[in-house]
Amino acid sequence: MNTFGSIYRLTDFGESHGSAMGGIIDGVPSGIVLDLDEIQKEVNTRSPGVSTLVTQRKESDKVEFLSGITADGVTLGTPIGFIIRNVDARPADYSELKDIYRPGHADYTYQLRYGIRDYRGGGRASARETVCRMVAGAVAIQILRKKGVTIHSYVSAIGKEVNTGSDGLTAAMRKLVEECRRNGDSVGGRVKITITGMPGGVGNPVFGKLQSRLAEAMMSINAVRCFQYGAGYNASESYGSEMLCFPDGILGGISTGLPIEMEIAFKPTPTLGVDVPARNSKGEMVTLRAKGRHDPCVAIRGCHVARAMAAMTILDILLIHKASTL
Amino acid sequence: MNTFGSIYRLTDFGESHGSAMGGIIDGVPSGIVLDLDEIQKEVNTRSPGVSTLVTQRKESDKVEFLSGITADGVTLGTPIGFIIRNVDARPADYSELKDIYRPGHADYTYQLRYGIRDYRGGGRASARETVCRMVAGAVAIQILRKKGVTIHSYVSAIGKEVNTGSDGLTAAMRKLVEECRRNGDSVGGRVKITITGMPGGVGNPVFGKLQSRLAEAMMSINAVRCFQYGAGYNASESYGSEMLCFPDGILGGISTGLPIEMEIAFKPTPTLGVDVPARNSKGEMVTLRAKGRHDPCVAIRGCHVARAMAAMTILDILLIHKASTL
Amino acid sequence: MNTFGSIYRLTDFGESHGSAMGGIIDGVPSGIVLDLDEIQKEVNTRSPGVSTLVTQRKESDKVEFLSGITADGVTLGTPIGFIIRNVDARPADYSELKDIYRPGHADYTYQLRYGIRDYRGGGRASARETVCRMVAGAVAIQILRKKGVTIHSYVSAIGKEVNTGSDGLTAAMRKLVEECRRNGDSVGGRVKITITGMPGGVGNPVFGKLQSRLAEAMMSINAVRCFQYGAGYNASESYGSEMLCFPDGILGGISTGLPIEMEIAFKPTPTLGVDVPARNSKGEMVTLRAKGRHDPCVAIRGCHVARAMAAMTILDILLIHKASTL
Amino acid sequence: MNTFGSIYRLTDFGESHGSAMGGIIDGVPSGIVLDLDEIQKEVNTRSPGVSTLVTQRKESDKVEFLSGITADGVTLGTPIGFIIRNVDARPADYSELKDIYRPGHADYTYQLRYGIRDYRGGGRASARETVCRMVAGAVAIQILRKKGVTIHSYVSAIGKEVNTGSDGLTAAMRKLVEECRRNGDSVGGRVKITITGMPGGVGNPVFGKLQSRLAEAMMSINAVRCFQYGAGYNASESYGSEMLCFPDGILGGISTGLPIEMEIAFKPTPTLGVDVPARNSKGEMVTLRAKGRHDPCVAIRGCHVARAMAAMTILDILLIHKASTL
Repeated sequence: MNTFGSIYRLTDFGESHGSAMGGIIDGVPSGIVLDLDEIQKEVNTRSPGVSTLVTQRKESDKVEFLSGITADGVTLGTPIGFIIRNVDARPADYSELKDIYRPGHADYTYQLRYGIRDYRGGGRASARETVCRMVAGAVAIQILRKKGVTIHSYVSAIGKEVNTGSDGLTAAMRKLVEECRRNGDSVGGRVKITITGMPGGVGNPVFGKLQSRLAEAMMSINAVRCFQYGAGYNASESYGSEMLCFPDGILGGISTGLPIEMEIAFKPTPTLGVDVPARNSKGEMVTLRAKGRHDPCVAIRGCHVARAMAAMTILDILLIHKASTL
Repeated sequence: MNTFGSIYRLTDFGESHGSAMGGIIDGVPSGIVLDLDEIQKEVNTRSPGVSTLVTQRKESDKVEFLSGITADGVTLGTPIGFIIRNVDARPADYSELKDIYRPGHADYTYQLRYGIRDYRGGGRASARETVCRMVAGAVAIQILRKKGVTIHSYVSAIGKEVNTGSDGLTAAMRKLVEECRRNGDSVGGRVKITITGMPGGVGNPVFGKLQSRLAEAMMSINAVRCFQYGAGYNASESYGSEMLCFPDGILGGISTGLPIEMEIAFKPTPTLGVDVPARNSKGEMVTLRAKGRHDPCVAIRGCHVARAMAAMTILDILLIHKASTL
Repeated sequence: MNTFGSIYRLTDFGESHGSAMGGIIDGVPSGIVLDLDEIQKEVNTRSPGVSTLVTQRKESDKVEFLSGITADGVTLGTPIGFIIRNVDARPADYSELKDIYRPGHADYTYQLRYGIRDYRGGGRASARETVCRMVAGAVAIQILRKKGVTIHSYVSAIGKEVNTGSDGLTAAMRKLVEECRRNGDSVGGRVKITITGMPGGVGNPVFGKLQSRLAEAMMSINAVRCFQYGAGYNASESYGSEMLCFPDGILGGISTGLPIEMEIAFKPTPTLGVDVPARNSKGEMVTLRAKGRHDPCVAIRGCHVARAMAAMTILDILLIHKASTL
Repeated sequence: MNTFGSIYRLTDFGESHGSAMGGIIDGVPSGIVLDLDEIQKEVNTRSPGVSTLVTQRKESDKVEFLSGITADGVTLGTPIGFIIRNVDARPADYSELKDIYRPGHADYTYQLRYGIRDYRGGGRASARETVCRMVAGAVAIQILRKKGVTIHSYVSAIGKEVNTGSDGLTAAMRKLVEECRRNGDSVGGRVKITITGMPGGVGNPVFGKLQSRLAEAMMSINAVRCFQYGAGYNASESYGSEMLCFPDGILGGISTGLPIEMEIAFKPTPTLGVDVPARNSKGEMVTLRAKGRHDPCVAIRGCHVARAMAAMTILDILLIHKASTL
């Protein structure tokens, strides 16, 4: 449940306002020289507080590695344990949420599922958990790079503002996000992820399809509601004669060797800076105004998480692929 | 690789033009009275040759159960083994494909992956494999029904023709498919799947999210290029203030108790009844005209496969959920 | 539950007196030329009726391959489905067992577990299921041989009669088994299994230890009550100074490159040809005399099953090992 | 590889002389009140330095819980992350082992497997890793107790000294261990584990047998060379007429409801306080005298680890069992 991957595996833990987040990365090949500074930098790209466009929670997100790596950064092949202390936890901000289920959040479903929940900032359901994915993703990115595989992601749309480049945010996008912040509103967005350098012939037919694994990974990111790859949604409106040579990157669940392009769509976060109707544990309607610090557009930080998840998935698939011959 | 599910599991086998397809269903609770005739009827909904809109291959798809069920149709709790003989296999139709990779098909990627392939009708990559999913799905549908959970699917679009009802095909859709057949062309389409009666509080946060499992299942269906649920793709173009009370059916990876709606998009099949350019094993361009019998719109039969996959996924998740308390 | 292995996997099905046994072998590398006649011969070594020392049930155990192999016996890399029809099923022999739980058999525990059972010859609990393991083991044996790994097994003891050679049965052992048959009694036994040619450095520390996987495999064989390897049980009575250079074959869960020796102990089958006390479904004591045909010493046929299980386990571990480097 | 269990799962990390050991326990049911002091006490039973009979390394083994539990010790159903700092690590003790493979240890096999190793005190291969199992085992023990299932373990033999009671060590045993310490020698031993209160009908036939899971668990403990349960090894020397009503606790892989008795045999640790021959990385023979602090009889601390592993295994199986009905 809290493990991702078959060979290259991340198992993680941590509540948003508990003492620490952390994880264990298993299946890392031995003898690989990791650049630990670069891992920290990757993690920082997703960190809160890095710009005015994202949540103002201040977390240094300093990664402490506890095992699996020599003092020189060489992997031992044994599991890499790591923790990230929660520094700017403000559980008091959430005290009024103890008995209230925020609309569009997992408060209510967690209560149904567990009969108990850490209501402080969403607890385990908070996107804070994704900091652990950044660590495992950053390790995967470095290993993949040595094999010539690169993962690129960018915010392809925010609301109706589309990014025709493939990097950063356009001025119009920034303006839209700032407006949302001012208005106490939020807005959806999309992220495109491209995998290049993927060798052909990797993946599996039937239930282990490359796209199944990638979709599973992408849909595990908070607020994602749609996954498409290759010809995507538009293919459903086309004729075969139009699409014949469309390079999907994957055929029959197996890579062709051409780049694999995916896009995911994020819903707007339901945490708004205005009064919203909510239900409490007695079933009564109450009015709620969020006090916590939040992202007006989750796609901005989600963009980095998507890259991390793609890297973990592809590395895992490449490792499993090795087991197909003796 | 050829197994789907954790507790309720289908493992299947079979090449399109080999002697038989078959599978093993494990994790079936004991003591359940199955209606075997109904299972056969479910399987038949996907069968080729049932209407002029689908492939004219004639397969009775007669399911032979070999274990796990008493003579009266009661499940023993032991694995249900079954086979379906391939009757109308015409491998000779495919002899010229031995050294040719059909564009948009998995011929080339299988060759890369395995260094050998059964070129007859796509071998293992053929959608014929989905007949096994229909069996396991039909068993799941019956078990779910006893718990009040129902799965409904319908073809929501073919090309640009949209179905505003929730069943069958509209006259315009039928006309479009017939035109494609006449022209030797094909067309994409979409399928909507709705799960009703799903209890709230089922699923898992983080990596075992309900939507991750459903996306993985849906993307395993041949020709699917897009998966969305709840607010879907459109959510990415919306403001939070607009979406606040949108019933996604799932929050934080866990069911709310409300219906779960998904839509998947199929690309048009690349098998056309006209000359198409292809590459052979020497890397030369050749001209190819398909001789096999194919579907002008794979969404029509895919609609039934999607329902089967949703049923298997939901039953599996409901069974796993039982293991969350002692 | 009915699947063995991670990469090289057997999933099997079948009740002892149902219509067929069968299985699916997944994870077979592609392009391997299998000798199908040899597979059948391996299966036959375990078959009932091959000598007066084993059960007189007559089963040809003819393996029918349905997928995954070309007409020439070359593996496609896709799952190998196979069935073995039950020919000499005599369910009538078991009609009186419908409401009786044979002592020392799984009748009672199956009833507890499933609330229903196929009482005919033990149903799924029968050692007949192991015929499927013979097929998957025989395929593994051929693949391993190409890599220089061989698995040898022999009956090392029957009752108090010990075999100091490493093959066949001694005259004293045969005499003991014949006596048991005449007396309607049964006797325990032991089997030694040796893996040679195993490369060093294969296996995993902590929870994936080579010996954990082998023990799991061996304990899955009906009637096995003890597993030991290397220095074995005797090591517990020794001083470190005596054992310093004992070649265990495995250290820290990882192979050393030296042969790996294991021994397993079988209990005597509880099916006797004399009156035995048993309990029926009403909880009453009744007297039972077995009518079915049985083995006086299950170690004799179990010896072949142990070899098959060792082969499957080692092949699986060697394949997984490939995934430890990129 | 570093994960144990299917539903109740421990994933752990840590090198013996690295900065910390730690783990993540997943699958813990929510709403259970844990006694954290008792967990610490359980962990302490295995800790080094607790008596003159075990290694003199001084580790407080203070468990720091980081997630998954409220301040009151109530489980949230989310993963429980924990770490245990290594306090008395003395890596300098091991500097001469950098290029030497200690006989009977995993030094050589780790080098083969990974091409690199943490030579300080065995690194990941050290029994220090088992401290994490104690934590997960202690949690399982508390949960099982609420269901009436108890696990008892005791040292049943040290060398040829047998314990006819079922607790503590006999005076003769203590004397033997003290002698070994003085002589710089070590000695093997055995541990008996009994599971009582296990409900009948739990487990799985064929590959998921209760005894397969238990054997896998027990063989994962360092230095264990033999596993037996029920009638055990002796059954192989008996007649069926003698064993008919022997209560094995498990039949056909499924619990009967009677107690389950197991015994495991430990080899003597190969770390001796005298000069021993060893091979270095150049293949030369050298003489080695251990400087690290070690156990004269690993069965003494292994006894607690065995109990922890049994508890984890049984809890996991009980949880999985829930998934067999809807």
